[in-house]
Amino acid sequence: MADQMEQIGTAFVNYYYSIFDSNRENLRPLYKDQSVLTFEGQKCMGADEIMNKLTSLGLKQVKHKIITMDVQPTLAVQPNGILVSVSGNLVLDNEQNPVKFAQCFYLLPEGSNFWVQNDIFRLNYG
Amino acid sequence: MADQMEQIGTAFVNYYYSIFDSNRENLRPLYKDQSVLTFEGQKCMGADEIMNKLTSLGLKQVKHKIITMDVQPTLAVQPNGILVSVSGNLVLDNEQNPVKFAQCFYLLPEGSNFWVQNDIFRLNYG
Repeated sequence: MADQMEQIGTAFVNYYYSIFDSNRENLRPLYKDQSVLTFEGQKCMGADEIMNKLTSLGLKQVKHKIITMDVQPTLAVQPNGILVSVSGNLVLDNEQNPVKFAQCFYLLPEGSNFWVQNDIFRLNYG
Repeated sequence: MADQMEQIGTAFVNYYYSIFDSNRENLRPLYKDQSVLTFEGQKCMGADEIMNKLTSLGLKQVKHKIITMDVQPTLAVQPNGILVSVSGNLVLDNEQNPVKFAQCFYLLPEGSNFWVQNDIFRLNYG
Protein backbone atom coordinates (compact mmCIF):
# COMPACT_ATOMS: atom_id res chain seq x y z
CA MET A 1 0.00 0.00 0.00
CA ALA A 2 2.81 2.36 0.94
CA ASP A 3 4.66 1.25 -2.18
CA GLN A 4 1.59 1.85 -4.31
CA MET A 5 1.20 5.37 -2.93
CA GLU A 6 4.86 6.03 -3.63
CA GLN A 7 4.43 4.74 -7.18
CA ILE A 8 1.36 6.89 -7.80
CA GLY A 9 3.11 9.96 -6.39
CA THR A 10 6.20 9.37 -8.51
CA ALA A 11 4.16 8.76 -11.64
CA PHE A 12 2.09 11.88 -11.00
CA VAL A 13 5.08 14.13 -10.35
CA ASN A 14 6.99 12.89 -13.41
CA TYR A 15 3.89 13.31 -15.57
CA TYR A 16 3.02 16.73 -14.17
CA TYR A 17 6.42 18.30 -14.70
CA SER A 18 6.96 16.73 -18.12
CA ILE A 19 3.65 18.25 -19.26
CA PHE A 20 4.34 21.56 -17.48
CA ASP A 21 7.71 21.80 -19.21
CA SER A 22 6.39 20.89 -22.68
CA ASN A 23 2.74 21.96 -23.10
CA ARG A 24 1.08 23.40 -20.03
CA GLU A 25 -2.39 23.45 -21.60
CA ASN A 26 -2.45 19.68 -21.31
CA LEU A 27 -2.49 19.96 -17.51
CA ARG A 28 -6.19 20.89 -17.61
CA PRO A 29 -7.61 17.37 -17.05
CA LEU A 30 -5.78 17.23 -13.70
CA TYR A 31 -7.84 20.11 -12.26
CA LYS A 32 -11.53 20.36 -11.39
CA ASP A 33 -13.91 23.08 -10.20
CA GLN A 34 -12.94 22.40 -6.59
CA SER A 35 -9.20 22.61 -7.26
CA VAL A 36 -7.17 25.40 -5.71
CA LEU A 37 -3.80 26.66 -6.94
CA THR A 38 -1.62 29.15 -5.10
CA PHE A 39 1.21 30.21 -7.37
CA GLU A 40 3.77 32.49 -5.73
CA GLY A 41 1.07 33.73 -3.36
CA GLN A 42 -1.63 34.24 -6.00
CA LYS A 43 -4.68 32.10 -5.35
CA CYS A 44 -6.76 30.65 -8.21
CA MET A 45 -9.97 28.66 -7.69
CA GLY A 46 -11.23 26.11 -10.21
CA ALA A 47 -9.79 24.62 -13.40
CA ASP A 48 -10.53 27.65 -15.61
CA GLU A 49 -8.83 30.19 -13.37
CA ILE A 50 -5.94 27.80 -12.73
CA MET A 51 -5.35 27.15 -16.41
CA ASN A 52 -5.52 30.88 -17.18
CA LYS A 53 -2.78 31.40 -14.63
CA LEU A 54 -0.57 28.52 -15.72
CA THR A 55 -0.72 29.41 -19.40
CA SER A 56 0.02 33.11 -18.89
CA LEU A 57 3.19 32.97 -16.83
CA GLY A 58 5.24 34.59 -19.55
CA LEU A 59 7.86 31.86 -19.42
CA LYS A 60 9.03 30.26 -22.61
CA GLN A 61 11.30 27.46 -21.53
CA VAL A 62 10.89 25.89 -18.12
CA LYS A 63 12.68 22.84 -16.80
CA HIS A 64 11.88 21.32 -13.39
CA LYS A 65 14.46 19.10 -11.75
CA ILE A 66 13.07 17.13 -8.82
CA ILE A 67 15.43 16.72 -5.86
CA THR A 68 13.14 15.33 -3.16
CA MET A 69 9.62 13.93 -3.16
CA ASP A 70 7.60 12.76 -0.18
CA VAL A 71 4.12 11.22 -0.15
CA GLN A 72 1.67 10.67 2.69
CA PRO A 73 -1.88 9.33 3.04
CA THR A 74 -4.56 11.54 4.63
CA LEU A 75 -5.91 8.84 6.90
CA ALA A 76 -8.60 10.72 8.77
CA VAL A 77 -10.40 12.26 5.80
CA GLN A 78 -9.60 10.17 2.72
CA PRO A 79 -7.22 7.23 3.17
CA ASN A 80 -6.67 7.05 -0.59
CA GLY A 81 -5.87 10.75 -0.91
CA ILE A 82 -2.17 11.47 -1.38
CA LEU A 83 -0.31 14.50 -0.14
CA VAL A 84 2.81 15.02 -2.28
CA SER A 85 5.58 17.45 -1.39
CA VAL A 86 8.33 18.19 -3.89
CA SER A 87 11.50 20.27 -3.71
CA GLY A 88 13.80 20.90 -6.60
CA ASN A 89 15.45 23.25 -9.01
CA LEU A 90 13.82 25.27 -11.74
CA VAL A 91 15.66 26.49 -14.82
CA LEU A 92 13.82 29.40 -16.42
CA ASP A 93 14.28 30.37 -20.05
CA ASN A 94 17.98 30.59 -20.69
CA GLU A 95 19.10 31.53 -17.19
CA GLN A 96 22.33 29.86 -16.10
CA ASN A 97 21.47 29.52 -12.43
CA PRO A 98 18.53 27.42 -11.34
CA VAL A 99 16.20 28.68 -8.60
CA LYS A 100 14.94 26.42 -5.85
CA PHE A 101 11.24 25.65 -5.64
CA ALA A 102 8.91 23.83 -3.29
CA GLN A 103 5.50 22.57 -4.34
CA CYS A 104 2.85 20.51 -2.64
CA PHE A 105 -0.12 18.74 -4.17
CA TYR A 106 -3.09 17.04 -2.62
CA LEU A 107 -4.30 14.32 -4.99
CA LEU A 108 -7.74 12.76 -4.69
CA PRO A 109 -8.85 9.52 -6.34
CA GLU A 110 -11.62 9.39 -8.91
CA GLY A 111 -12.10 5.99 -10.47
CA SER A 112 -8.64 4.78 -11.35
CA ASN A 113 -7.29 8.31 -11.75
CA PHE A 114 -6.29 11.14 -9.45
CA TRP A 115 -7.06 14.85 -9.68
CA VAL A 116 -5.41 17.83 -8.02
CA GLN A 117 -7.46 19.16 -5.08
CA ASN A 118 -4.62 21.44 -3.93
CA ASP A 119 -1.50 22.84 -5.55
CA ILE A 120 0.82 25.29 -3.80
CA PHE A 121 3.94 26.49 -5.60
CA ARG A 122 6.70 28.71 -4.23
CA LEU A 123 10.15 29.70 -5.33
CA ASN A 124 12.45 29.33 -2.33
CA TYR A 125 14.64 32.44 -2.32
CA GLY A 126 17.14 33.45 0.33
CA MET B 1 -13.94 32.69 5.54
CA ALA B 2 -10.73 33.08 3.54
CA ASP B 3 -9.52 35.57 6.12
CA GLN B 4 -10.36 33.22 8.95
CA MET B 5 -8.41 30.40 7.32
CA GLU B 6 -5.45 32.75 6.86
CA GLN B 7 -5.67 33.74 10.52
CA ILE B 8 -5.80 30.14 11.70
CA GLY B 9 -2.87 29.20 9.46
CA THR B 10 -0.79 32.14 10.68
CA ALA B 11 -1.61 31.44 14.33
CA PHE B 12 -0.77 27.76 13.90
CA VAL B 13 2.53 28.39 12.15
CA ASN B 14 3.67 31.00 14.68
CA TYR B 15 2.69 28.72 17.55
CA TYR B 16 4.25 25.62 16.03
CA TYR B 17 7.66 27.15 15.38
CA SER B 18 7.81 29.03 18.67
CA ILE B 19 7.21 25.72 20.50
CA PHE B 20 9.56 23.80 18.19
CA ASP B 21 12.32 26.33 18.85
CA SER B 22 11.80 26.42 22.63
CA ASN B 23 10.47 23.08 23.93
CA ARG B 24 9.64 20.51 21.29
CA GLU B 25 7.98 18.13 23.76
CA ASN B 26 5.09 20.55 23.99
CA LEU B 27 4.19 19.84 20.34
CA ARG B 28 2.62 16.51 21.38
CA PRO B 29 -1.00 17.75 21.71
CA LEU B 30 -0.93 18.75 18.03
CA TYR B 31 -0.49 15.14 16.85
CA LYS B 32 -2.83 12.15 17.04
CA ASP B 33 -2.62 8.42 16.23
CA GLN B 34 -3.56 9.13 12.62
CA SER B 35 -0.91 11.83 12.17
CA VAL B 36 1.96 11.27 9.75
CA LEU B 37 5.32 13.07 9.81
CA THR B 38 7.97 12.77 7.13
CA PHE B 39 11.13 14.45 8.35
CA GLU B 40 13.91 14.59 5.78
CA GLY B 41 12.48 11.48 4.11
CA GLN B 42 11.94 9.48 7.33
CA LYS B 43 8.30 8.58 7.84
CA CYS B 44 6.77 8.38 11.33
CA MET B 45 3.19 7.28 12.02
CA GLY B 46 1.26 8.38 15.11
CA ALA B 47 1.95 10.84 17.92
CA ASP B 48 4.36 8.57 19.83
CA GLU B 49 6.63 7.85 16.90
CA ILE B 50 6.47 11.47 15.78
CA MET B 51 7.40 12.81 19.20
CA ASN B 52 10.26 10.31 19.48
CA LYS B 53 11.60 11.64 16.22
CA LEU B 54 11.15 15.33 16.99
CA THR B 55 12.75 15.10 20.43
CA SER B 56 15.79 13.11 19.27
CA LEU B 57 17.04 15.27 16.42
CA GLY B 58 20.30 16.06 18.22
CA LEU B 59 19.85 19.78 17.69
CA LYS B 60 20.32 22.12 20.61
CA GLN B 61 19.33 25.51 19.30
CA VAL B 62 16.96 25.82 16.39
CA LYS B 63 15.46 28.98 15.00
CA HIS B 64 12.88 28.97 12.19
CA LYS B 65 12.38 32.13 10.18
CA ILE B 66 9.25 32.05 8.04
CA ILE B 67 9.57 33.68 4.63
CA THR B 68 6.36 32.58 2.88
CA MET B 69 3.17 30.92 4.07
CA ASP B 70 0.21 29.83 1.95
CA VAL B 71 -3.07 28.29 3.09
CA GLN B 72 -5.80 26.48 1.17
CA PRO B 73 -9.06 24.72 2.01
CA THR B 74 -9.52 21.08 0.97
CA LEU B 75 -12.99 21.60 -0.45
CA ALA B 76 -13.81 18.12 -1.73
CA VAL B 77 -12.93 16.16 1.41
CA GLN B 78 -13.11 18.52 4.38
CA PRO B 79 -13.94 22.18 3.66
CA ASN B 80 -12.67 23.18 7.10
CA GLY B 81 -9.36 21.36 6.72
CA ILE B 82 -6.42 23.66 6.01
CA LEU B 83 -3.40 22.86 3.92
CA VAL B 84 -0.50 25.08 5.00
CA SER B 85 2.74 25.39 3.06
CA VAL B 86 5.71 27.22 4.57
CA SER B 87 9.13 28.15 3.24
CA GLY B 88 11.84 29.79 5.24
CA ASN B 89 15.28 29.74 6.77
CA LEU B 90 16.52 27.56 9.58
CA VAL B 91 19.42 28.50 11.82
CA LEU B 92 20.87 25.40 13.49
CA ASP B 93 22.90 25.57 16.71
CA ASN B 94 25.49 28.25 16.22
CA GLU B 95 25.89 27.98 12.46
CA GLN B 96 26.35 31.31 10.71
CA ASN B 97 24.54 30.42 7.51
CA PRO B 98 20.87 29.54 7.58
CA VAL B 99 19.60 26.62 5.48
CA LYS B 100 16.38 26.86 3.52
CA PHE B 101 13.48 24.62 4.45
CA ALA B 102 10.04 23.81 3.12
CA GLN B 103 7.30 22.29 5.24
CA CYS B 104 3.67 21.49 4.63
CA PHE B 105 0.98 20.69 7.16
CA TYR B 106 -2.54 19.43 6.74
CA LEU B 107 -4.62 20.66 9.68
CA LEU B 108 -7.97 19.14 10.58
CA PRO B 109 -10.57 20.67 12.88
CA GLU B 110 -11.65 19.06 16.13
CA GLY B 111 -14.01 21.17 18.18
CA SER B 112 -12.51 24.64 18.20
CA ASN B 113 -8.95 23.33 17.73
CA PHE B 114 -6.91 21.89 14.90
CA TRP B 115 -4.60 18.88 14.86
CA VAL B 116 -1.87 17.89 12.42
CA GLN B 117 -2.99 15.14 10.05
CA ASN B 118 0.11 15.54 7.86
CA ASP B 119 3.53 17.12 8.34
CA ILE B 120 6.25 16.98 5.70
CA PHE B 121 9.58 18.69 6.37
CA ARG B 122 12.52 19.07 4.01
CA LEU B 123 15.68 21.08 3.94
CA ASN B 124 15.98 22.63 0.51
CA TYR B 125 19.60 22.19 -0.52
CA GLY B 126 21.12 23.07 -3.86
